[in-house]
Amino acid sequence: MNNHIKVGMLGIGNIGKGTYQALEMNHDKILETTGFDIEIVKILNRHPEKDRGIDIPKDKYTKDIKDIIEDPEISIVVELIGGIEPATEYMAEAIRHGKSVVTANKAAIAANGKFLSELAQEHQVLLRFEAAVAGGIPILTSLTTALLSNSFSEVHGILNGTTNFILTQMSEFGKDYGEVLKDAQAKGFAEADPTADVEGIDAANKLSILISLVFGAGIRPEKIPTQGITAVCPEDIAFAKESGYRIKLLASAREQGDKLTCSVEPSMVPVKHPLASVNNEFNAVYVKGNAVDELMFYGRGAGSLPTGSAVLGDIIGIARKLGKDSAYDIVPQLRYDSDLEFRGVGESKYYVRMTVADKPGVLGRITTMFGHYDISVEAIQQKTPYECDGERVATLIFILFSVDKSLLTHALDEALKFDVTKSIDNVIRVEE
Amino acid sequence: MNNHIKVGMLGIGNIGKGTYQALEMNHDKILETTGFDIEIVKILNRHPEKDRGIDIPKDKYTKDIKDIIEDPEISIVVELIGGIEPATEYMAEAIRHGKSVVTANKAAIAANGKFLSELAQEHQVLLRFEAAVAGGIPILTSLTTALLSNSFSEVHGILNGTTNFILTQMSEFGKDYGEVLKDAQAKGFAEADPTADVEGIDAANKLSILISLVFGAGIRPEKIPTQGITAVCPEDIAFAKESGYRIKLLASAREQGDKLTCSVEPSMVPVKHPLASVNNEFNAVYVKGNAVDELMFYGRGAGSLPTGSAVLGDIIGIARKLGKDSAYDIVPQLRYDSDLEFRGVGESKYYVRMTVADKPGVLGRITTMFGHYDISVEAIQQKTPYECDGERVATLIFILFSVDKSLLTHALDEALKFDVTKSIDNVIRVEE
Repeated sequence: MNNHIKVGMLGIGNIGKGTYQALEMNHDKILETTGFDIEIVKILNRHPEKDRGIDIPKDKYTKDIKDIIEDPEISIVVELIGGIEPATEYMAEAIRHGKSVVTANKAAIAANGKFLSELAQEHQVLLRFEAAVAGGIPILTSLTTALLSNSFSEVHGILNGTTNFILTQMSEFGKDYGEVLKDAQAKGFAEADPTADVEGIDAANKLSILISLVFGAGIRPEKIPTQGITAVCPEDIAFAKESGYRIKLLASAREQGDKLTCSVEPSMVPVKHPLASVNNEFNAVYVKGNAVDELMFYGRGAGSLPTGSAVLGDIIGIARKLGKDSAYDIVPQLRYDSDLEFRGVGESKYYVRMTVADKPGVLGRITTMFGHYDISVEAIQQKTPYECDGERVATLIFILFSVDKSLLTHALDEALKFDVTKSIDNVIRVEE
Repeated sequence: MNNHIKVGMLGIGNIGKGTYQALEMNHDKILETTGFDIEIVKILNRHPEKDRGIDIPKDKYTKDIKDIIEDPEISIVVELIGGIEPATEYMAEAIRHGKSVVTANKAAIAANGKFLSELAQEHQVLLRFEAAVAGGIPILTSLTTALLSNSFSEVHGILNGTTNFILTQMSEFGKDYGEVLKDAQAKGFAEADPTADVEGIDAANKLSILISLVFGAGIRPEKIPTQGITAVCPEDIAFAKESGYRIKLLASAREQGDKLTCSVEPSMVPVKHPLASVNNEFNAVYVKGNAVDELMFYGRGAGSLPTGSAVLGDIIGIARKLGKDSAYDIVPQLRYDSDLEFRGVGESKYYVRMTVADKPGVLGRITTMFGHYDISVEAIQQKTPYECDGERVATLIFILFSVDKSLLTHALDEALKFDVTKSIDNVIRVEE
């Protein structure tokens, strides 16, 4: 058995540094525990002159990817460039050269997981991507090992640390979105261009990967109904708190009968639910299995070392299989063979906040309209009317019993046509 | 490759039924995902006439363990009898016959894990026991796969559902221990003889296993300083709530320099810590790694199907290795090779509640005494004095800065000798 595992790494950004450091810190313990002497022997780095703030021998660097992909001594290639291309092509080339691949690239796996997965199967090597979903949290490993003994009916994740930090701060200090975003950017918890995070795109990529692992269904991230957190107002957060909820950006997928529903959207989570206590930059994944029942995994979903921990865990996992003379394992990690019919967002309870003219009969008109659509109202709250643009208006809040989102959209479109309706201010899913 | 995996099961109690049912529910999905056709072919059942409330073909039952251990077709033996003996001897015999073993037996693994582990290594088979710690939560699998890329500095678990249920109910409804225990027994959440749960023995067994996996140290459960929940009073819980804490029965182990400290004891957990939100019968394990940082796993620590899920997960894990022609894996799951020196409970902040005579100078005497022992006081609370046995007495509560438990015990022994000290009512560890 060859116990010296040589690894080639593509890219030396934040996660690359974390992986390198995690290996430096724990190399000896890994050797002692597993018998594997893991070494990162080459690193693709287009700008070796740039100071990365980490002490790596210069002779490990190469500007030519062929030095890694065509090196017969390298058995594992770690892709940490990010983005869909050229990362996908690099991974494919590595697989074609008989190398197992580890990546933290959610965008590439969400877009091309099927292709890469089948290619790895064809070449009898492994493709691992624990770090692509929820950073350091070992959710993918758990789902594809210890939890294989379950069929799952639902998965919910708080998969983006930036948005969870913003929502937590809004909730704790009553600040508004813009103010907290600026603060998060100053502290380095949000990017200068936060679009992918705050619009839910990052979470949708991760949910797409989870759906394939949990339900065996291939839903491309752009097909997942996705709504970010930019429209969440202090009023919504205050109502949620008063009513025993917290607002979280949930990435959810559920089996409802023979249908699969999913969404990424701000959702009200009951305060007693374990996801409600997941605060600030932390991530969590909650699943419900038919044997294990409820499970939640909590930890750091981003950051150099936590994500590096997941990358290194995948490297060790492949090393252990290489140690048995074949990296290939018959367990397909990504599956796309489900019979479930994809049905978009599906049904749920909803919170609706709207502004109406403060006139007699308004409430009656709106509830009658809901009745026509067969939408039942669980709770109503009317706030004290106030003056706006020379007119008396009032805020109405409804909690609606389970309703299909598209039906609700129709109903709210009709409500908007009433002369008394000033605006539909927000619609937020309510979890039970 | 032989994809028909024949399993023999010893015992058909609560967990045995859950394992059987979890396999019935998910057999086809497991076959489809992994390619393994897993079948429980024989079950050791001394009383086949007894109605177990589950439909199992009678010809699977045997009263003779040799029918299982000596059957060359059976490759995995699942031990679900419980207790140290004869379970250990049965497992040893199965291993000697070249069978891999899965067990949910925390007592046997805590007592004889080293022996069984070495025996399995000698016979090149696997020993798995995910279900022995925290039921359905895949903590052992995670620690020995995805998280191998870390060195851990601490582990804390809420590892007993009965005591967590009792403490949660005491905290939510202000009831006292005895009242809640009766209620829990009526609801089936506590045994008629709850000793092993409420005295922390069950949690100590599980902590002993975790210590071996996380720190590579062999600390037998009876060596772990263990204190149950029977002395926790509504007063303690009320003070904890007022001060931003929850009281949990924590099983903790920490590396402090080159020393290992551990204990099972009621502990005050800050309300913002994720362990504080783990309520009722749920379990959780929290670890801190040098790369992944904080991680918490939350789920059901007991119950037929959740525990069965873990047993079945282990069976699948072994099947996947059998599929590679050898069940043996070089990763030793239990390690006893640590250089850490075992130091008992170690240092911590402490909460001390005592009753004293309501006389001038009492507080001064006690704080001066703490000073002599170099124990610093972080906070003091004195409750309104009251009449007791014809004397005015008062409750004093101290929060003490980090102090070695044995030093604190000396100090409190001295305090008890003061004529003004009526009683030391409780001492509870405070987590930071």
